[in-house]
Amino acid sequence: MDFLVHMEVGSIGTGEDANRLLKQEADRAQELAEMGLLRRLWRVPGRRENWGIWTAKSIDELHAALSSLPLYPALHITIHPLATHPNDPNLPLPAKSKD
Amino acid sequence: MDFLVHMEVGSIGTGEDANRLLKQEADRAQELAEMGLLRRLWRVPGRRENWGIWTAKSIDELHAALSSLPLYPALHITIHPLATHPNDPNLPLPAKSKD
Amino acid sequence: MDFLVHMEVGSIGTGEDANRLLKQEADRAQELAEMGLLRRLWRVPGRRENWGIWTAKSIDELHAALSSLPLYPALHITIHPLATHPNDPNLPLPAKSKD
Amino acid sequence: MDFLVHMEVGSIGTGEDANRLLKQEADRAQELAEMGLLRRLWRVPGRRENWGIWTAKSIDELHAALSSLPLYPALHITIHPLATHPNDPNLPLPAKSKD
Amino acid sequence: MDFLVHMEVGSIGTGEDANRLLKQEADRAQELAEMGLLRRLWRVPGRRENWGIWTAKSIDELHAALSSLPLYPALHITIHPLATHPNDPNLPLPAKSKD
Amino acid sequence: MDFLVHMEVGSIGTGEDANRLLKQEADRAQELAEMGLLRRLWRVPGRRENWGIWTAKSIDELHAALSSLPLYPALHITIHPLATHPNDPNLPLPAKSKD
Amino acid sequence: MDFLVHMEVGSIGTGEDANRLLKQEADRAQELAEMGLLRRLWRVPGRRENWGIWTAKSIDELHAALSSLPLYPALHITIHPLATHPNDPNLPLPAKSKD
Amino acid sequence: MDFLVHMEVGSIGTGEDANRLLKQEADRAQELAEMGLLRRLWRVPGRRENWGIWTAKSIDELHAALSSLPLYPALHITIHPLATHPNDPNLPLPAKSKD
Amino acid sequence: MDFLVHMEVGSIGTGEDANRLLKQEADRAQELAEMGLLRRLWRVPGRRENWGIWTAKSIDELHAALSSLPLYPALHITIHPLATHPNDPNLPLPAKSKD
Amino acid sequence: MDFLVHMEVGSIGTGEDANRLLKQEADRAQELAEMGLLRRLWRVPGRRENWGIWTAKSIDELHAALSSLPLYPALHITIHPLATHPNDPNLPLPAKSKD
Repeated sequence: MDFLVHMEVGSIGTGEDANRLLKQEADRAQELAEMGLLRRLWRVPGRRENWGIWTAKSIDELHAALSSLPLYPALHITIHPLATHPNDPNLPLPAKSKD
Repeated sequence: MDFLVHMEVGSIGTGEDANRLLKQEADRAQELAEMGLLRRLWRVPGRRENWGIWTAKSIDELHAALSSLPLYPALHITIHPLATHPNDPNLPLPAKSKD
Repeated sequence: MDFLVHMEVGSIGTGEDANRLLKQEADRAQELAEMGLLRRLWRVPGRRENWGIWTAKSIDELHAALSSLPLYPALHITIHPLATHPNDPNLPLPAKSKD
Repeated sequence: MDFLVHMEVGSIGTGEDANRLLKQEADRAQELAEMGLLRRLWRVPGRRENWGIWTAKSIDELHAALSSLPLYPALHITIHPLATHPNDPNLPLPAKSKD
Repeated sequence: MDFLVHMEVGSIGTGEDANRLLKQEADRAQELAEMGLLRRLWRVPGRRENWGIWTAKSIDELHAALSSLPLYPALHITIHPLATHPNDPNLPLPAKSKD
Repeated sequence: MDFLVHMEVGSIGTGEDANRLLKQEADRAQELAEMGLLRRLWRVPGRRENWGIWTAKSIDELHAALSSLPLYPALHITIHPLATHPNDPNLPLPAKSKD
Repeated sequence: MDFLVHMEVGSIGTGEDANRLLKQEADRAQELAEMGLLRRLWRVPGRRENWGIWTAKSIDELHAALSSLPLYPALHITIHPLATHPNDPNLPLPAKSKD
Repeated sequence: MDFLVHMEVGSIGTGEDANRLLKQEADRAQELAEMGLLRRLWRVPGRRENWGIWTAKSIDELHAALSSLPLYPALHITIHPLATHPNDPNLPLPAKSKD
Repeated sequence: MDFLVHMEVGSIGTGEDANRLLKQEADRAQELAEMGLLRRLWRVPGRRENWGIWTAKSIDELHAALSSLPLYPALHITIHPLATHPNDPNLPLPAKSKD
Repeated sequence: MDFLVHMEVGSIGTGEDANRLLKQEADRAQELAEMGLLRRLWRVPGRRENWGIWTAKSIDELHAALSSLPLYPALHITIHPLATHPNDPNLPLPAKSKD
């Protein structure tokens, strides 16, 4: 099942601690991608927010993935469950858009 | 550039006219997919709404695509512009999920 | 998976047509209960709205169940996906409360 | 009478104090379940929020139960009173869902 | 148990039909007052809305009372359940205020 | 004139200082009740909020009463002015409800 | 007592009927001004809405004035009760502003 | 041009510093009144908010006046521009209302 | 003075009448531009809404310009008054963007 | 492509540090103007907010520009993408308005 997930990143401080946290977040995101849970991730321009497409076999699996993120305590997350649409072309998205 | 687009479908009547309209909508969606504009489309479960990932070279091109939909006069559309995220795995989404 | 589902019932007219529709709705609700999809249903007091606990194997199955309701075209539905809580006593709810 | 209760958990700190508090919360939830007040509890995925089905003989009894929770000072609670629905199948919910 | 109930009155048409409906509403309100369900009723100034204090033994009894009002199909109702407050002076309200 | 007043109580700290403040609040509420300003007071179940019926000869008198409460700096207050309703039964509310 | 009153004017049709209604509204506004109830009235630019300062001895008197307006059935009214401010210069407003 | 201005006063601390600030605010309000910019000011009862009628020759002049207030850093201000209404009686408001 | 103006276009029907109206709207927009009132106009992509920059000597002049639009009865307008910003580069906007 | 951008400035402290930050912000705004990204900037009167017209070749370029502002960590930004409107007069805005 696919889920559209919106995340708003709250205060994570500054300096080395914040940098280490962001590095850990990137590492965990890559792991979740390799496990097939995180598919796509976009930044909301001008904001510390992102939209992602996540795929999970159950809501519990999705919750476990999200709460495993190092930034989880600072995240305000909204989940939009997605159902199949008959008009979905299911096209792969292009490689990182180079505007 | 990628855009997350939310559509709420208003009243389109019933009967043969509505069916013809829905058929035209599916045809146009397929054309826009072949042109690379519409990438993915999901239904909001329990509602006449959908979320889509659209790719366009400009905001005007996106507007032209959306307003070319046969259902356009009945749609309430919200566009979320998307920026590149450094943690984006850019994975192809799986083929139509078979829960 | 469990889902908390809120339904607001829009205009369904009056007279025999409305009564027949309500009878069909009750029949379909019973079928969905026998299939194990609809578990509990409560009325919002003073309103034409209800809260229900639904169980489905996927979001698509939930959507199919909801959209099979005869009242579906008149419903405004909001789905809250539910995850397991460690403190859930998982108690059967009492038989119809007789205040 | 049944009540649908939504709880948002605010800041409870970290470390041993927080763990002790969460343990006390789990103990009290079990007591309230044994008293028949708390029936079901689900986590909102991705958030520190939960939805519960509570049964009480009066609003004062419900308030007493909720305000007896160790986390009460950190909770933002919304109560939805529930009335009987004629289409309620009153099915026991399945044992902890194993997705 | 006491409930604070807000009612917004929708369109009830005009002319004799509306007048008859308003007369029936007044009669039913008086009956519910004699049964001890409706205690106080105030108009929201400048609007077709009112606030009332209702007393009922259960949520189902409250729903039955509200849905027995002739204007019920035109009402948008919001119920606020009330718990006992230790500082409540429980004073009778003065007879109709004569400003 | 009657007013429906909603109060949300913000942070008042803990310990002896908070207890003394709550005692002073109860004393002042009793005085305002004896002066005929505060008529009824209910707790919003599960929240640090209350609904009250207040009677005052002017908006300035109401403001003076509310701002004389020891908790005033911590209160977020919303005032709903009330007009006379022709269907008001003007029944005394029952003595403290014993559910 | 002074009140800040916001009015949104709904549909009043077009043609001679609407013109007659607007003329009656202007006449009634002048009467209410001569009675000292309506003090000032401004248009919200670009909208069919207005802000007014009204003075009344009671909420019932204010409601009676507002509901005597010929446009009353088409108005959506919001009343903001006003208390005296110690810094109020209480200056007469200038004659109709000639920008 | 007239403007309806709403101000919400945030935290200004307590003690002598706050008193001095409030005294400076009152002095500056009087100056702005003498300059014809601030015409009327009312307190929102029960809240640290006020509504005022301000007159300025331009939006920049209004901004300069508002930002010259000693409390400006603590204010959350909303400006409603006002246009002339044909039914405005343009009555002077009564001297400080003595309810 | 500059104003940021948002317009939502409601129902204007279809066919020749609508086309004539849109032509009249375009003509009037050009006149207002020649008078220096309307400076820039953009479409909200995917919606029947627009954002414009308008310049007027007073709020009354702005209201007169907006209400002179043939589509005015179908418009829902929101006006944001603008003050001078010290960092404004005041650059001419580029000729019609050709994405 | 043009974008309407709203910025709300959060807390930036006071004293010399804040002044230096504001000076850096002004310098960077000028650089972005010289690069053709920032076209116009207005202050929301009475608030620490501004509206700007920005021009960028892509959403990523816009995000890079906004996040390069020294005040970026304190900004709450909302981006409204703009499409071409057929009635746009595309007039240069007047030199800094002198009301």
